[in-house]
Amino acid sequence: MPSPLTISLDAMGGDAGPEMVIPGAAVALKRRPDLRFILYGQSEAVEPLLARYPDLVAASRFVHCEISVRMDDKPSQALRLGRWKSSMWRCVQAVRDGEADVAVSAGNTGALMAMSKFCLRTLPDIDRPAIAAMWPTLRGESVVLDVGATIGSDAKMLVHFAVMGAAMARALFGLERPTVGLLNIGAEEVKGVEEVREAGHILRAIDHPNFEYYGFVEGDDLGKGTVDVVVTEGFSGNIALKTAEGTARQLAEYLRSAMTRTLSAKIGYFFARSAFARLREKMDPRKVNGGLFLGLNGLVVKSHGGTDSEGFAAAIELGRDMVLGSLTSKIANDLEYTLGSMRKQFAEQTAAQAQTA
Amino acid sequence: MPSPLTISLDAMGGDAGPEMVIPGAAVALKRRPDLRFILYGQSEAVEPLLARYPDLVAASRFVHCEISVRMDDKPSQALRLGRWKSSMWRCVQAVRDGEADVAVSAGNTGALMAMSKFCLRTLPDIDRPAIAAMWPTLRGESVVLDVGATIGSDAKMLVHFAVMGAAMARALFGLERPTVGLLNIGAEEVKGVEEVREAGHILRAIDHPNFEYYGFVEGDDLGKGTVDVVVTEGFSGNIALKTAEGTARQLAEYLRSAMTRTLSAKIGYFFARSAFARLREKMDPRKVNGGLFLGLNGLVVKSHGGTDSEGFAAAIELGRDMVLGSLTSKIANDLEYTLGSMRKQFAEQTAAQAQTA
Repeated sequence: MPSPLTISLDAMGGDAGPEMVIPGAAVALKRRPDLRFILYGQSEAVEPLLARYPDLVAASRFVHCEISVRMDDKPSQALRLGRWKSSMWRCVQAVRDGEADVAVSAGNTGALMAMSKFCLRTLPDIDRPAIAAMWPTLRGESVVLDVGATIGSDAKMLVHFAVMGAAMARALFGLERPTVGLLNIGAEEVKGVEEVREAGHILRAIDHPNFEYYGFVEGDDLGKGTVDVVVTEGFSGNIALKTAEGTARQLAEYLRSAMTRTLSAKIGYFFARSAFARLREKMDPRKVNGGLFLGLNGLVVKSHGGTDSEGFAAAIELGRDMVLGSLTSKIANDLEYTLGSMRKQFAEQTAAQAQTA
Repeated sequence: MPSPLTISLDAMGGDAGPEMVIPGAAVALKRRPDLRFILYGQSEAVEPLLARYPDLVAASRFVHCEISVRMDDKPSQALRLGRWKSSMWRCVQAVRDGEADVAVSAGNTGALMAMSKFCLRTLPDIDRPAIAAMWPTLRGESVVLDVGATIGSDAKMLVHFAVMGAAMARALFGLERPTVGLLNIGAEEVKGVEEVREAGHILRAIDHPNFEYYGFVEGDDLGKGTVDVVVTEGFSGNIALKTAEGTARQLAEYLRSAMTRTLSAKIGYFFARSAFARLREKMDPRKVNGGLFLGLNGLVVKSHGGTDSEGFAAAIELGRDMVLGSLTSKIANDLEYTLGSMRKQFAEQTAAQAQTA
């Protein structure tokens, strides 16, 4: 790990690009003055903005990159045009080369995932990395993965997600043995897909020392915070995440409209304004901004493309917390244990089958 | 259609059974005095309760059934023990026999679906029925299906869901040509599963006179009400539904806690109490209680098992609206058109392939 803790930033990523990234880095630096940054981007766009934040200039190194990946580039397109030289690629490469501890980009998800896979490579036994999100709950926060990097996962992939998500919960929440649930549906006639059931059997049998397998959870357990880590494949995970975001916005709109409708409601709003401010803070999606790519040889945080500097600062701090929590080594160790345990299970099953045969 | 409109009720279904169903029927009757009921249940449990509602007695016929399906019976168990004779079976059978226009039960979903399939049979070309739910949105309400009856659907099934959901939106909202979207994920690298993409191609090519295919929608479009009908397979649909319910409860809890924390917030709450009442009403899950089984030779409404009499009355009214909207014949006609159009598409493709070969 480079010392001090160093974060590489794709200054061109996000809907607003450097105008959001640079102030965001400044906000994060103010809160965490020990951070150091490497900024990748086009000098004409970045340097004038950077000049406004002398503290950030002092804590950063800027690297000019001619190419920027656009928000609507296809991953293949982005790789073809931007490999080796775009700000996004260089930002990830800094992690590979040991110059930075974690890369943060608000750029296009598909391109960032493609470049991260190509540049950092996946961990042994991991075919497809996952995106893990932080989910605010009634109990605090949970880790939810995958929220959109994979579509359809077999049992083995779900087990890997469980192991990696649990390592993230340990690194992030300081829990010794977080609880892990598999997202499923409770309709009596079905009780979920085969892969989910099989993943449940494997997780039960592994009985991992570093997390506790809780069993199945349903969609409404996400908000309750029934478990610390919720595991699902990317299609339903992405739909759950976006549905929750949509529902939150919908209810905020109902509330706003109810509170501005009558004079009496407006007076009520005036008296309760600090309570509303507290509620807004609680519901602020920027506070949990940042999806983590799990399963790579290195840490990459994907910030929401439409976030503002506050949200981007939260994504930077998420990356920082993962580095300080030694997430990479936790994942490597926990996966190794899992792999050994799965091999042992398989050998025992084979032996038992040989005996009965 | 029997005249007057007749609804068969499983008086034993739901967590509270007759104590919720009978008052629920009374509430519905008060609002819709033209309704008639056939009540199926155990006389010892139902008749004393029924006696409290003379108007309901006058509008009902009661049929004693010895057997009740329990909330935790497995579908196979329920069928074995309750076929031909349980209150749930008899309630569905009344629809088959033309004695009732629609059956309503708050009993266990799996058992009700198994009995409905066995008793009513599926429509031609429909393999598996779907459960459609009403979804409150910023624009009003949408129909969402399937929310849990099927796991994994091929393109053809998704097309059928689209046709049936659109028929429901026509019957319910009085729209001439409702919009239909396929639930998908927007991650750039993937753009959804193969079945969803294929269903999109088919729907685009059919260009159905009775609905407009909008394209893909994402989880956050549910709350926005971007389309009138959202189509997905049952696993992700159930997760979306439960996630939205969970998020709504979570935010209501945040709000409650913020409004009771300080004196000033309490004063604000006092002034704004009518606004809060309005908000509560807007968020009341009982108002949209009732999932409709689609794809059967007859109408069955599944009420939430844990609802109260208000919620059960809403499920009854949903059933009534479907009868008045001629849902069954709309679905039959629209499916026939769809089938013809899909056959034509297939024939054209085959001819084109034969020419190029």
